[in-house]
Amino acid sequence: METLIGSAAGVISTICWLPQTLRAWRTRQTADLSLPTNLMVFASIGLWLIYGLMLDAWPMVIANAIALVMVGSIITAKLKFG
Amino acid sequence: METLIGSAAGVISTICWLPQTLRAWRTRQTADLSLPTNLMVFASIGLWLIYGLMLDAWPMVIANAIALVMVGSIITAKLKFG
Repeated sequence: METLIGSAAGVISTICWLPQTLRAWRTRQTADLSLPTNLMVFASIGLWLIYGLMLDAWPMVIANAIALVMVGSIITAKLKFG
Repeated sequence: METLIGSAAGVISTICWLPQTLRAWRTRQTADLSLPTNLMVFASIGLWLIYGLMLDAWPMVIANAIALVMVGSIITAKLKFG
């Protein structure tokens, strides 16, 4: 049961960034997004990725690598569109 | 070292929501925020909280409870301001 909850949380915390990424690039409007929030989200995902690498927890590494790309893309949109 | 990285990630994943929460309520502008992303972030934080409760991992419970309040507040702002 713990594994099921943890896995569901892992999957959702990975795919959750997709709608925001698509919205930012489709609308080219990012004024309402907080840059500090997105930079800290990026930093924390990067740290979870390193943590996963240290523990050889591959599902964690893969999930966080995918999330890192999407949040990186949101930050790129924010820096580009303001 | 793993504990240090994990703790840093935990602290950042909690406080990261504060700037977006403050921005949403200060500017009352949330058009660029993706509702599905924020709902999924809320769901994943809720699941991590339940996971922490199941494992009696209190730092995880407290960090996710604080994050849940902030993301809940971002969602409330989004529903209110559109």
